[in-house]
Amino acid sequence: MENILKEDERIDDLEFEGLKIIQNKNEFCFGIDSVLLSDFAKDIKPNSRVIDLGTGTGIISILLSKKIKLKKIIAVEIQMAMCEMARRSVKLNNLEENIEVINENIKELDKKLEVGKFDSIVTNPPYKKMDSGIKNERESKYISRHEVLCNLEDIIKVSSKLLKNNGSIYMIHRPERLADIIFLLRKYKLEPKVLRMIQPKGNKEPNLLLIKAVKNAGEFLKVQKSLVVYKDNGEYTDEILEIYDKKRKKK
Amino acid sequence: MENILKEDERIDDLEFEGLKIIQNKNEFCFGIDSVLLSDFAKDIKPNSRVIDLGTGTGIISILLSKKIKLKKIIAVEIQMAMCEMARRSVKLNNLEENIEVINENIKELDKKLEVGKFDSIVTNPPYKKMDSGIKNERESKYISRHEVLCNLEDIIKVSSKLLKNNGSIYMIHRPERLADIIFLLRKYKLEPKVLRMIQPKGNKEPNLLLIKAVKNAGEFLKVQKSLVVYKDNGEYTDEILEIYDKKRKKK
Repeated sequence: MENILKEDERIDDLEFEGLKIIQNKNEFCFGIDSVLLSDFAKDIKPNSRVIDLGTGTGIISILLSKKIKLKKIIAVEIQMAMCEMARRSVKLNNLEENIEVINENIKELDKKLEVGKFDSIVTNPPYKKMDSGIKNERESKYISRHEVLCNLEDIIKVSSKLLKNNGSIYMIHRPERLADIIFLLRKYKLEPKVLRMIQPKGNKEPNLLLIKAVKNAGEFLKVQKSLVVYKDNGEYTDEILEIYDKKRKKK
Repeated sequence: MENILKEDERIDDLEFEGLKIIQNKNEFCFGIDSVLLSDFAKDIKPNSRVIDLGTGTGIISILLSKKIKLKKIIAVEIQMAMCEMARRSVKLNNLEENIEVINENIKELDKKLEVGKFDSIVTNPPYKKMDSGIKNERESKYISRHEVLCNLEDIIKVSSKLLKNNGSIYMIHRPERLADIIFLLRKYKLEPKVLRMIQPKGNKEPNLLLIKAVKNAGEFLKVQKSLVVYKDNGEYTDEILEIYDKKRKKK
């Protein structure tokens, strides 16, 4: 297994169906966000044509391919080095048949892929506006976190083009961007249908949100009960344990 | 006190600063919504010029006038009978100096009041779309609950006209309408700034929401921790007790 890794890289066990992922300690590493998004998107039907916009390490595509036995996911990543690392993770999990990692700019994806043909899109986009936050990070990490190469509108606009009628988009983002998200989704005919806030603890304000929108759907938003990550004693809640690894809970 | 009441009417004690309200048992009676909205809006500065759009019984204006010592609230109600009853409640509380109840159509309010001159608007609009829900209600009750005479867009559009730059609107509504609310607020340059979900219990999905938007403000939405109404044992939470009547908690 040694030769699959480059300098500063390590293999992490995803503790789900034996999946593993390659990460570089200097780059953006996956967080709970990716795990929660892939769980939220598990109502995607098997055999759907799915795109993962901004796949990074490939984590969401890798988890989804097992959670819903998807035949084909196109995982899109603009950064060549991340893209190449994600491909090695796909290979490590023997998922080359299911996941195709492509090195493309999201903004131009409607010129590279068929429009109006995809069933679902999953995306964990950069959370921060370009001019916000600390800038003294490694450039590639900055690109993963900030809207440098594409912004929320670019992602939503291209998603609307790529999705078929009634196709769905699943996104994880920050609550502070909820107005942007809802406004832009509706602007591009992606009607918000399900919203779930994620709170670090039961009595705290949310710090993440999950949202599902459906192309050309009718107006009616279901706001689900919040997903709470930690119990008051600092342990994961049962729901989070179940999301991370169902077997652990059943024991 | 007898002659202030008409048939089927009663006087209810608001248990706050000695305030009372006249309600008709056959009409729309105020609920917790009005109490929560008037509390949510308590960051309105004293001496602000405030409009209460769709005041109904007058409950929100009456509570606000005491909570923030407002000098002048214009309470707008399209239904003549409700309007007349609200006026009697204002008189009952000796608030004629502070609250002016006017019988106007919200849609035409920008022709009746000065535009761009108001500091804040509070509104508890009809929650349901016109073609939804049970229709075999009394007409006046149906008007209070459904978007018959004005819809959400009418309310937000006229609010944007009446508010001054940086003026604020405070609204209570249903979570299922959140996409409509955010989309329309932003369409009319009222930027959503604070959102608070209201849950009947700690582990339930929200059934109401409070939202504050500010005219021409920058983009950044603060999602507060949810307001929980009941404890698991069915009693009001401390926060609700405090909102209803602070003295009760201090005892």
